[in-house]
Amino acid sequence: MNALEKLVNRNNDGKFICVGLDTDSDKLPLHIKSAYNPTLIFNKAIIDSTSEYCAAYKINFAFYEKDGEKGLKILLETIRYIPSNILIIADAKRGDIGNTSRMYAKSVFEYYNCDAVTLNPLMGRDSLEPFLDYKDKLNFILALTSNKGANDFEKLKLSNQMFLYQQIIEKVKDWNLNNNCGIVFGATNSKELKENIMSFGSLSVLLPGIGAQGGNLEDVINAFKIAKRKSFLINVSRGIIYKSSAEDFAEKAREEILRLNTEKNNIFLPSVI
Amino acid sequence: MNALEKLVNRNNDGKFICVGLDTDSDKLPLHIKSAYNPTLIFNKAIIDSTSEYCAAYKINFAFYEKDGEKGLKILLETIRYIPSNILIIADAKRGDIGNTSRMYAKSVFEYYNCDAVTLNPLMGRDSLEPFLDYKDKLNFILALTSNKGANDFEKLKLSNQMFLYQQIIEKVKDWNLNNNCGIVFGATNSKELKENIMSFGSLSVLLPGIGAQGGNLEDVINAFKIAKRKSFLINVSRGIIYKSSAEDFAEKAREEILRLNTEKNNIFLPSVI
Repeated sequence: MNALEKLVNRNNDGKFICVGLDTDSDKLPLHIKSAYNPTLIFNKAIIDSTSEYCAAYKINFAFYEKDGEKGLKILLETIRYIPSNILIIADAKRGDIGNTSRMYAKSVFEYYNCDAVTLNPLMGRDSLEPFLDYKDKLNFILALTSNKGANDFEKLKLSNQMFLYQQIIEKVKDWNLNNNCGIVFGATNSKELKENIMSFGSLSVLLPGIGAQGGNLEDVINAFKIAKRKSFLINVSRGIIYKSSAEDFAEKAREEILRLNTEKNNIFLPSVI
Repeated sequence: MNALEKLVNRNNDGKFICVGLDTDSDKLPLHIKSAYNPTLIFNKAIIDSTSEYCAAYKINFAFYEKDGEKGLKILLETIRYIPSNILIIADAKRGDIGNTSRMYAKSVFEYYNCDAVTLNPLMGRDSLEPFLDYKDKLNFILALTSNKGANDFEKLKLSNQMFLYQQIIEKVKDWNLNNNCGIVFGATNSKELKENIMSFGSLSVLLPGIGAQGGNLEDVINAFKIAKRKSFLINVSRGIIYKSSAEDFAEKAREEILRLNTEKNNIFLPSVI
């Protein structure tokens, strides 16, 4: 089962929430902080309680890299613990000259064996090609991000009257020869989402920014409902994994994802579209 | 001694070459391949033979990350081996939303204790701020890269008639409140370098792209000579570390950096500017 099939299967099954494993070792519940390897214990408990209900996991490499070798060992063990039928996205935002990107692609897709990756397209097509060459993987390329800084460059108007993020989307469609491309589109940009969703073509969409960053779930779901589109993932990180900081953290994480699924189903059932 | 001082000291001493430690474990000389920890042996030999003559080391994280924990241990040991008066640049091209960039900054500046980093500005100011908050470090922000893909977005014309890379440079100057910003400007763009160098203000400049990528040393040096500017680094990776694949690899690396220094001195001596 390749990466896109994993996503489509889950989407067809009515699951659209991607759980962001941005696990900060400083923010773990007190009762496991003193355990051996608490971050791994935490991640495993979150995975056990959410894997039945989520569409994917997004693992933020930064949170593991900051602890060096030790952190990367936890990253690898977390990835191995996720059931093999669920899409695993390496949130790494890589992008570099060709021979360097080849190394990053090897790292993410071979060493860590992730299904998908987030990529930064600023350096252009050849900087992403080594990733795009992995036909069975999925590449979510930054188009319009969820942060305030999206105004600095992504929303600049070009001389052809398109915004930079729109130009990026057009290019990604050109690059999608292996049907393994997607885009990152911040859920905080609900106006832009509505205005641009029909231009996404067959690209899968990863939408971060719900919850702590202020994006609205209803707006996002409505945009996809109106456009009659599936193949998307709504990422929630802190809003799920830190829903409770007590002993019931895993249970509360499950309750939160069930609540989000219900909220989504109240707007539309996947069978409708 | 902070990062900028390390750079200025070396520049004042006539040293402008940055040695790129893009060490690919597959490309090591045969005679050390079978040794214990050959990549580290290789890096140490290169450092021993070049540290007196170079201005900085740039370590490409991708080449170490691809080997997981093991690679990152070598990365850390390589960094620790470099004399403390020489600038170490983490070539990682990071950039993410604030709380994630904080983790990356912690990783690069605290865990790995690098002096400088390369950053991708696509996501805007708040994505880089956690790095810029480290006042004693140096942040080389991608403006115009050395690869062909620079045409895809970096060289797009904006509605204000500037090119995107020029707009990035203007923003970086605004962000340089702690005097800890620089830009990456690919040496393959010698025409653009000449046309824009006067607009760089006090930003330090990291120039990759000499050698394997086709950039011309003379063009770069001349541009800086004419502009009467110092505070720059010309990166050479493969052209130095793989100059020979035989037992004399370290000696040949030293000869190559000496040759580059002489070529530079024949165009201008730093005392002249």
